[in-house]
Amino acid sequence: MENLALLFGEKVRSIRKDKGVTQEGLAMICNVDRSYMGKIERGQARITLEMLYLIAKGLQCHPSMLLP
Amino acid sequence: MENLALLFGEKVRSIRKDKGVTQEGLAMICNVDRSYMGKIERGQARITLEMLYLIAKGLQCHPSMLLP
Repeated sequence: MENLALLFGEKVRSIRKDKGVTQEGLAMICNVDRSYMGKIERGQARITLEMLYLIAKGLQCHPSMLLP
Repeated sequence: MENLALLFGEKVRSIRKDKGVTQEGLAMICNVDRSYMGKIERGQARITLEMLYLIAKGLQCHPSMLLP
């Protein structure tokens, strides 16, 4: 299942970059610390449904787009 | 965000029933206690990405189908 967090993090990073949003910018939108957003993107954080939706909102995409 | 858990739980319950799977059956497939599966369906549990994928696997549907 660690693979899931890793794949999710990679998706967040790639969509974030596609949209020209900085990690700091996304962290601010999601009201989390930049270092935590870094952990998410490295697959080192436990992702809840709420965080999935927060990040999707921050990246202006549907949450299913972030699912590995 | 509580609404999210509630909507998710309703989706799990409706797809589970459509597929003729009992709550106990789904709990067993997902290797969680039946009472915990009841909490999930009532929107009283914090859903992780891992649990989303476990339940989707148990219901043989894509995880995005379970997203509210």
